[in-house]
Amino acid sequence: MAYLVSSFHIREKMEKKVVGIVGLGLIGGSLGLALRESDKYRVVGYDRNPKHREEAIHLHLVDEVVSFEEIERVDILFLAIPVEGIISALNSFKNLKEDITIIDMGSTKREIVSAVPEKIRKNFVAAHPMAGTEKSGPSAGFSSLYKDRVVVLCDLEESGEKQRQESEEIFSYLQMRILYMDSVEHDLHTAWISHLPHVISFSLANSVMAQEKRDSILNLSAGGFRDMSRLAKSSPRMWRDIFQQNRDNLLHSINLFQDELNSFKSLIANESWDDVEEQMKSANRLHEIL
Amino acid sequence: MAYLVSSFHIREKMEKKVVGIVGLGLIGGSLGLALRESDKYRVVGYDRNPKHREEAIHLHLVDEVVSFEEIERVDILFLAIPVEGIISALNSFKNLKEDITIIDMGSTKREIVSAVPEKIRKNFVAAHPMAGTEKSGPSAGFSSLYKDRVVVLCDLEESGEKQRQESEEIFSYLQMRILYMDSVEHDLHTAWISHLPHVISFSLANSVMAQEKRDSILNLSAGGFRDMSRLAKSSPRMWRDIFQQNRDNLLHSINLFQDELNSFKSLIANESWDDVEEQMKSANRLHEIL
Repeated sequence: MAYLVSSFHIREKMEKKVVGIVGLGLIGGSLGLALRESDKYRVVGYDRNPKHREEAIHLHLVDEVVSFEEIERVDILFLAIPVEGIISALNSFKNLKEDITIIDMGSTKREIVSAVPEKIRKNFVAAHPMAGTEKSGPSAGFSSLYKDRVVVLCDLEESGEKQRQESEEIFSYLQMRILYMDSVEHDLHTAWISHLPHVISFSLANSVMAQEKRDSILNLSAGGFRDMSRLAKSSPRMWRDIFQQNRDNLLHSINLFQDELNSFKSLIANESWDDVEEQMKSANRLHEIL
Repeated sequence: MAYLVSSFHIREKMEKKVVGIVGLGLIGGSLGLALRESDKYRVVGYDRNPKHREEAIHLHLVDEVVSFEEIERVDILFLAIPVEGIISALNSFKNLKEDITIIDMGSTKREIVSAVPEKIRKNFVAAHPMAGTEKSGPSAGFSSLYKDRVVVLCDLEESGEKQRQESEEIFSYLQMRILYMDSVEHDLHTAWISHLPHVISFSLANSVMAQEKRDSILNLSAGGFRDMSRLAKSSPRMWRDIFQQNRDNLLHSINLFQDELNSFKSLIANESWDDVEEQMKSANRLHEIL
């Protein structure tokens, strides 16, 4: 017993880094759970939704819930909120710890990077973890969300040396694979590989639900619809902002997808079955990639 | 030891029903594996591809591989081949066992049902198991593919009483949930819930692969593309026939999906973000269904 108490005291004396998380939904909550498993970090959180703050305590996502003012004093501050909120938050901090590392976890990068106030540019690291589910809110969080996934760090040459190291260290602790990318490039690629698929899934879900009754969907959905509509359950609040910030790239990708679908439809309409089969064989090349 | 030998003899003496499977890919192979686990069935198979026949033996998908002529003499005959092949097969049998039950496992039903020769109509049961993966070929088979899934039986009032009972019994043995549906209805619903999602996935895969390099796809695909492109790995041979047989319903569903996507795109182009969010909230109603 004496041993346990003293061991507890020694751990408490270690200099734990204080991590703050703004936004305690799927992304922030999972982060809190994962970081709390380490002795190196003490985790405090803030969410402007009082229900989320209560849930975060109840679900042990953070060690403590603090105010927005208090969270400016942490060592490493994660912004895990919708991307328009990230831009507002970056411009509303008043009393940040001088050498703080601020890491945003948003799905777009170009507009966020260009909105960072000059005086905190060195403190800032732009990150996009390629991890998530269609669920949202504090109860959606789980500690292994980030394990073995990719995190893209953008425009890292504009971040301070300390901030670069600290972010690489914390993402390595999360067992993530770090990729480096220009923020403009990032937004081009994610338009195709993430944002367009979401647009399609939302539209597919709406068009199928307009035509088909609940029972048919439930009974027949093993035939493809279940997978193709999973993304359509994603948070409208979060995706509204993403589409807004990556609008031009997204519109371009939608247009080219529409061309592709239209030409596939024409082959079906014209009963050019050999060409239909060729198009599908071409799509099958995915087997070599994923 | 004596006990085991005698028990073996008793089992051998039981009248096993002989099940024949034409097509030893994912669908037929999985069926063979599942039925072979029972004492009630002896399973023989045929595939016109010699490699598939060899693999089927090697993988123990069937007890024996037989010729196309021999397979007409079984008690229950499954057709697990592309849907155009089903129509050809139904019209090429010459020496079927008199009270045989023939069950087709195709993804379309209307054209198949109307192509069944009158003299074997009572022998025929039209089935569509709502189960499958994007993989194909004998090695893709696994014995639990059908467990807890739905099987749709169409126009069952046109099948004979014995054939109805026998098909219900075998699908129950597979632990499937049986739904009854008109074949015209079936093709309408599956156009929306299965065939349209496949068309979209093939088109998405082709448009993304035309724009994005292998590495970007591999690294960033957790953001939605992986799910949305899984169906694009499906068998072109199989889907060509399905699109051909369900062409009109499919074209109608593609048109309505295109309208939906187009209106969603316009909202994004016009920066009507509140409406964009409303559309996504509407899609979120899926949470109540799936």
